[in-house]
Amino acid sequence: MRILGIDPGLATTGYGVIDYHKNQFQAVQYGVIRTNSKTSMPQRLSIINANLKEVILRYEPDVMAVEELFFNTNAKTAMLVGQARGVVLLTATMEGIETYEYTPLQVKQGVAGYGRAEKKQIQLMVKTLLNLKELPKPDDAADALAIAMCHAHTGNFCNVFKV
Amino acid sequence: MRILGIDPGLATTGYGVIDYHKNQFQAVQYGVIRTNSKTSMPQRLSIINANLKEVILRYEPDVMAVEELFFNTNAKTAMLVGQARGVVLLTATMEGIETYEYTPLQVKQGVAGYGRAEKKQIQLMVKTLLNLKELPKPDDAADALAIAMCHAHTGNFCNVFKV
Repeated sequence: MRILGIDPGLATTGYGVIDYHKNQFQAVQYGVIRTNSKTSMPQRLSIINANLKEVILRYEPDVMAVEELFFNTNAKTAMLVGQARGVVLLTATMEGIETYEYTPLQVKQGVAGYGRAEKKQIQLMVKTLLNLKELPKPDDAADALAIAMCHAHTGNFCNVFKV
Repeated sequence: MRILGIDPGLATTGYGVIDYHKNQFQAVQYGVIRTNSKTSMPQRLSIINANLKEVILRYEPDVMAVEELFFNTNAKTAMLVGQARGVVLLTATMEGIETYEYTPLQVKQGVAGYGRAEKKQIQLMVKTLLNLKELPKPDDAADALAIAMCHAHTGNFCNVFKV
């Protein structure tokens, strides 16, 4: 199963593509889609759409996993992330990719085994499970890989997984 | 000039198409795009995208005007509206329509002449200026017409307009 994990954001959208087969992970590709704050909002959203579409067409994931709405933020940030997230979900749907959502807690539980794991621990788990030589960078790409791995482990029931 | 006004929302996106020529307004069409909360998020966003695209292809507006980010709300609502708004902006851009943004204050000033106008007053102004027999319903469609009229009056400088 090939999974595309996405950590949506207006300035930086992280993506991570992994293969999961017989309990083994393999990193296919990961990176970020960046947009410049000097660019108009419609243009920024178009850039996210076009680049994500390219990732989907190039790596042909079976499913997409996205971090769920995260409300521990202010309304302004929430609205901006929401716009990027809406474009991410629409892009996947237009390309016929099914999407799954996981809360940050579920991702932590799914990857590190417990919900209070720190960012660094998650990144170390991602590096270890994917046999990467270095910590995946930038953070948004590492987060996207973690979201993809969360989906891999337990499908839509990530939160019951324990390492 | 034909203007498409949009009041974005996840459950209800209002739209209003008007013609503006020599200081005269004419309503072309208005209504709402509704999505059901029982439908999945990607599907809801697809419905907004498909219906808005249909409105654009049918009425061929020259520009689109959208209410600007409105932060006087909680993060959850902001994120949900943001997702719908992101899809609205992307859809217009994909169809080659330029978009303009106005704050609620600018819309009130642009349509009723002052920023503290009440919702009902705005609707009455919309009805009067568009020579409608009744108040446009539902509210989201009326709001969308007001946004389009705001753009008509002063292009990107709606806030300097006084009735």
